[in-house]
Parts: sequence; structure tokens; C-alpha cells
Amino acid sequence: MREIFEAELRQVGDDLIEMSRLVESAIRRAGTALLEADHQLAQEVIASDHAIDKLESALDERCVHLLAQQAPVATDLRIIITALRISASLERMGDLARHVAEVARGRYPAQAVPGPARETFVKMQAAAVHVAQRVTSLLATRDVALAAEVEQDDDLLDALHQDTFAASLAPGWAGTPQETIDVTLLGRYYERFGDHAVSVARRVTFLVTGDFDSEHAHTEA
Amino acid sequence: MREIFEAELRQVGDDLIEMSRLVESAIRRAGTALLEADHQLAQEVIASDHAIDKLESALDERCVHLLAQQAPVATDLRIIITALRISASLERMGDLARHVAEVARGRYPAQAVPGPARETFVKMQAAAVHVAQRVTSLLATRDVALAAEVEQDDDLLDALHQDTFAASLAPGWAGTPQETIDVTLLGRYYERFGDHAVSVARRVTFLVTGDFDSEHAHTEA
Repeated sequence: MREIFEAELRQVGDDLIEMSRLVESAIRRAGTALLEADHQLAQEVIASDHAIDKLESALDERCVHLLAQQAPVATDLRIIITALRISASLERMGDLARHVAEVARGRYPAQAVPGPARETFVKMQAAAVHVAQRVTSLLATRDVALAAEVEQDDDLLDALHQDTFAASLAPGWAGTPQETIDVTLLGRYYERFGDHAVSVARRVTFLVTGDFDSEHAHTEA
Repeated sequence: MREIFEAELRQVGDDLIEMSRLVESAIRRAGTALLEADHQLAQEVIASDHAIDKLESALDERCVHLLAQQAPVATDLRIIITALRISASLERMGDLARHVAEVARGRYPAQAVPGPARETFVKMQAAAVHVAQRVTSLLATRDVALAAEVEQDDDLLDALHQDTFAASLAPGWAGTPQETIDVTLLGRYYERFGDHAVSVARRVTFLVTGDFDSEHAHTEA
């Protein structure tokens, strides 16, 4: 029984890594679609979000079956519950990447991000890709030092999010209302992307260290 | 054992109802704070979000202990996993109510919602309170007819969300960039509030009917 359980648990871990890879790819392509007004790429990101959702459903089912068949306790039980929560965060990160792509598609052939905010979004995109890569590495290696780096990336995303407001509120802002709306929503999507990454990082840290406080620390400002 | 399990399960149900009541109160007061520029009330909503978070943590712990001690299978297991997911949605609805209050507080003593968008937000607030009430009733009664009504409330919230964009994009829109930002974010908060309510409604429906398809239907547009 134990061997089967270990194998199933490894599969859950592998599925989380695979979900995270898909999220990483989604945010990378969504940002390129946004910053290069690439309609085709935006379409692809939007279409491929379904794969993340499917993986989440399959992973969740696997976890529920594991609970039913193995009746795990203690650490094993926590691992499975935590996996369910991580998969929910990753699924949501996929949604947010899709939303970025949807804004890019909605403004095509125009650029959604107006000139004065462009530099900020170039940095947000870089930080978001960074955070996604680190989440994948963290899930693969369980190296909790990466979790601290995810928190730093998220701090950067939060600061850049404030910059998006500063840009729209600067005296010289000549954006149209549509541009102000897009900058506001895009900033929010990237900021939430970072929040969910921190949530995943804290949960992995919890699994590795057993420090339950980190598990229930709400990440959202 | 079964009696203890049943009692624990009732407690989980009661906690969910209590969480939902707190969410209902939070969105009701947040909307009043927003539409009446009531700084004191906004503060209260922001401060009281902590109570929802605490209830979520306690409920989640109870569920994990139930899984560990009772090793439930089949329907009992699904009930507990679903309770965990519902509590996450309710916690998030509390955050969103808090965000509405934060916008109200940030603009005080001014009104955050500019005149031309006011009527839309009066309607959004009414729909959000409605949806929250129905979620509480649904959790208390398990009357799945209420779930369909929650979906209708959410459709209304989605339509009103589109109206907020239409208001900001109308030729006569004279809002400042700050007002455009606030209208955009507030619209998003209310829209997400409705999404989470639908998620809760579908999960309760799943528990009552056993129709697992409804459980994995993602609610987010």
C-alpha cells in the first residue's frame, strides 16, 4: 500500500510541476502578445488555458481518490490538502495570464499599453516570468530558499503595480479612458499573479518545514 | 464514531453559514461606506475582515482533523473537500468586500464613485447583497433552486460590470483618471464577488445532487 501511495504522491507532485510549467509558458506568451500586440499569440494563450484547467481537475480527482483509498494521516494528509490548494492557485495564475492575453487581443492591432506605462509593464512582465520560473523550480526542488525569492519578486510586482497608478495619475497623463482602464486591469492581473505565486511558495515551505503558520498567512494586500 | 462525525460535519456546515453571514454583512456595509462616503463604516469593514479569515482557518483545521480522524470515503469525503473549497471562496468574498471599503476610505471625504457611474454601482451593490443573502440561505437550506437565482444575480453583476466600462468610455465621460481607475477596480471587485458566489452555489448543488460536473465548472469569464 505504501509503495502505491508514494507513487501516487509523486504523480501529484509531477502534475503540479507540469501545471506550473504551463502557467510559466502562458504568462511568458501573454506578456509577449501584450507588449508586441501579437494577436495570434494572444489567441494561443487564451486557447491553451483549457489545458491548465484540465490538469487541475485531474490532479484534484487524484488527490480525492488518494484520500479515499489510503486514508492518510498527519504529514501525508497535509501534503494532499496542500496539493489541492496549490493546484487552485496555479489554475488561477493561468486565468490571469489568459486575462492579459485577452486585453492584448481586445486592443489589436493597437498596443494596449500606452507609451508612458510601457516601461513599467516591461518590468512587470519580466518579474512575472521570473516568479513563475521560480515557482516551477520550487515545486521541482523543494528548495525553500526559492520561496524567499518568490516573495521578493512579488514585492517588486507590488511596487510596479503602484507605478502603474502613478503613471495614470501623473499630471502629464494623456491616456484615453480605455487606456486608463487597460493599465488598471493589467496592473491588477500581474499583481494578483504575484500574490498567488507567494501563496504557492508559502505552502511548499509549509510542506518542507512543517511550519503551519506559513500555510495560513494570507498573501493578499 | 458516526455520531461524532455527524456532529462535526454539522459544525462545519454551521461555520460555513456563519462565514457567509459575515460576508453578507461585510458587503452590505462596504457598499454603504462606498455610496455614502462613510469613513467610519469603511474602517469597520476593513477591521472586521480578520474575523472571516480566522473562521476560515478554524474551519479548515476542523476539516483536516475530520479527514485524519474519521478517514471518510465517498460522499462524506466529498462533503469535506467541498467545504474546504467553499470556505476559500467565502474568504475571498470577504477580501473583495474589504477592497470596496478600502476604495471608499482612500477617497474620503470625496465620493469614490463619480456621478455618471453612481446608478450602476447602486445596482451592483444591491445585486451583490442579494447574491450574498442567497448564498447564506443556500448554505442553510440546501435548496438548490437558490443556486439558479445566484447564477441570475451573477449574470446581472456581469452586465452591470460591462455598464461600468460603457460609462467610462462614453463620449461625455468627464471623470478624472483617478475616477476611471476607481470605477474599473470597483467594477472588477463586484464582478469577482459574483463569480465566487456562483462557485459556492455550484459546489452546494454538487453536494445536494451528487452531480460532479457542476463541481468542476469554472465560473470565471
